[in-house]
Amino acid sequence: MSFYVRTQIMQFNEALPLVSGLSLPAYELAYETYGELNASKSNAIVICHALNASHHVAGQYQGQDNSLGWWDNMIGPGKPVDTNRFFVIGVNNLGSCFGSTGPMQINPETQKPYGADFPVITVEDWVQAQERLVTRLGIENVLAVMGGSLGGMQVLAWSMLYPKRVGHAVVIASAPNLTAENIAFNEVARRAIVTDPDFYGGHYYQHGVIPKRGLRIARMIGHITYLSDDVMNTRFGRQLRRAAHAISSSTQEAQHYLYSTMEVEFQIESYLRHQGDKFAEYFDANTYLLITRALDYFDPAKAFGGHLSQAMANIEAKFLIISFTTDWRFSPSRSQEIVKALLDNHRQVSYVNIDAPHGHDAFLLDDPQYLSVVRSYFKHL
Amino acid sequence: MSFYVRTQIMQFNEALPLVSGLSLPAYELAYETYGELNASKSNAIVICHALNASHHVAGQYQGQDNSLGWWDNMIGPGKPVDTNRFFVIGVNNLGSCFGSTGPMQINPETQKPYGADFPVITVEDWVQAQERLVTRLGIENVLAVMGGSLGGMQVLAWSMLYPKRVGHAVVIASAPNLTAENIAFNEVARRAIVTDPDFYGGHYYQHGVIPKRGLRIARMIGHITYLSDDVMNTRFGRQLRRAAHAISSSTQEAQHYLYSTMEVEFQIESYLRHQGDKFAEYFDANTYLLITRALDYFDPAKAFGGHLSQAMANIEAKFLIISFTTDWRFSPSRSQEIVKALLDNHRQVSYVNIDAPHGHDAFLLDDPQYLSVVRSYFKHL
Repeated sequence: MSFYVRTQIMQFNEALPLVSGLSLPAYELAYETYGELNASKSNAIVICHALNASHHVAGQYQGQDNSLGWWDNMIGPGKPVDTNRFFVIGVNNLGSCFGSTGPMQINPETQKPYGADFPVITVEDWVQAQERLVTRLGIENVLAVMGGSLGGMQVLAWSMLYPKRVGHAVVIASAPNLTAENIAFNEVARRAIVTDPDFYGGHYYQHGVIPKRGLRIARMIGHITYLSDDVMNTRFGRQLRRAAHAISSSTQEAQHYLYSTMEVEFQIESYLRHQGDKFAEYFDANTYLLITRALDYFDPAKAFGGHLSQAMANIEAKFLIISFTTDWRFSPSRSQEIVKALLDNHRQVSYVNIDAPHGHDAFLLDDPQYLSVVRSYFKHL
Repeated sequence: MSFYVRTQIMQFNEALPLVSGLSLPAYELAYETYGELNASKSNAIVICHALNASHHVAGQYQGQDNSLGWWDNMIGPGKPVDTNRFFVIGVNNLGSCFGSTGPMQINPETQKPYGADFPVITVEDWVQAQERLVTRLGIENVLAVMGGSLGGMQVLAWSMLYPKRVGHAVVIASAPNLTAENIAFNEVARRAIVTDPDFYGGHYYQHGVIPKRGLRIARMIGHITYLSDDVMNTRFGRQLRRAAHAISSSTQEAQHYLYSTMEVEFQIESYLRHQGDKFAEYFDANTYLLITRALDYFDPAKAFGGHLSQAMANIEAKFLIISFTTDWRFSPSRSQEIVKALLDNHRQVSYVNIDAPHGHDAFLLDDPQYLSVVRSYFKHL
């Protein structure tokens, strides 16, 4: 049981110019806040979310069990990011399917859902939208911006786009851009969605269907990359599903293979199918395309001939950067590239590489060492 | 240009009992041989193929350009496995789509293609079928059995099932079983195929369609796991397709993003889509399910409570084991498990971990150090 929260919506009627050259005429942002803004408006912390998360960062909704925010272990009264001291803002990104304007909403120009016509959104576009919301809340400078994975990329963008307005940047399990392998996994996931016959070129809403087959495959691929090889072996190994569910009397037989190509044989298969099924029930396919593309496109060094140090030359924020030893999606060496670019610019940066077995997922989990590092950093803000 | 070869077919009319408990009533095996069997029939080498390969190991077909065998760099006159000295046999595995009896062939019981009714085949079943073919060729003892990846698993099975008949076992880029992550990738690929509406429960032949969408996705996933992160970054990195194809005058503009979620933007995407398209043209979906399942099921230690050393106690062959430093599909530590189990049994084993950048694919490539290790080993046979 956590504290109760509720989602708010902020309406924006001035167009948002996008990096692509297009613009979004009018839009809404869903957001939540936790804690109280102090009189000097100097205790605001913006939380940026990753691929499948939302503005619902902490707390829970009254009357809804199982509605805990995705970073409730990190943010709340007495938590590492202590809402007794800080005013924390969670914003849902544009293009999402969780409340902010996205492909499922009505396109004012056509009076039909945007679908595949929703403009491509970049990390910088998200940050610009977040900045407008923060400004509308009367906040000039944010004490910190914080995020993991794709959220960490938004933190980097904040620190480069609004260098004088960000006090601290907390970048967790992130990277300065995607590798070819990262892009490759995103591309396979997108192809699974786009080639699903129920996708209809992104206009499936009008056909009353959902490309669930593609979404399931996309999520299964994603899940493999979130976990470490080690944690998969520890949690699942080669255990058979029948054996895992067997009552003691039938254990012997349950150790035998079923010899089937289509049925679930191993526990890891059961787990992945379950994750895929769950995801396909709540996530929008067009949003998946948009968000993975935002990941692909993020590359602040690109405009500087690949020199990250030059891209970061104007940064003024102080940094806390955290990576996890077994994260092979955004490996520690990617965080270390950011550390190096900041040091090249004589910026103040604290870096911790947490020895955790859970792979990329670790940034969402209850690793005591990890949580205590964040607690310690925020204690002195 | 290599030497000319032709495929032969051997018919078997005695039923093959399968590990699953089922049996295959009658079947054919496609095979090729290179070099001459000597008078004492003591120079035979069996090559076991991996997932998407076949009995066409070396040489080429007369009148067919681009028909080089998949291991032509390894096997042939004067090659590391020298067909001037050895009689080399390539056998297509049961369940394949390249000539041996498989799901595309007619099921004698129904007079329709087997399709999804083709029985599940294990690595041990393949080896039993290979042994029958070798015996029919009049060969009692094989000088060596050799294979990479899934082929290496067959070599392990040969050495355990026919311990007195295998002189040398050459196991390259292989593993004593799949990890949970390996199974997970296989499962996603299978789900992509099985949930393709053109799959029809595995009986798509009768509907005149092919589940190409699923096959493409399966191959794209596979390809990512065959390459190392490093080699992907070196070959593709974040290069844009337009930039790669641009003529010099338009290079500047070609460096800009297209801002599209569905078009090819990066070179790695173009490469993967091409690989997927090619594969879907020639590979059978039911075969893909069967072969990935054979990989999943292989686990000789299973019958010995997980003790690989016990499973290998009866082995008499001498071993050459090769792994590649950047292979994350079957990492060097997996080869080292085999080495340890052999040493536990006081077997003679040579082990080389080749420092190659190419990942799992390295076992098919022209790495000079790798080829010279094999050459050196076979020189003294």
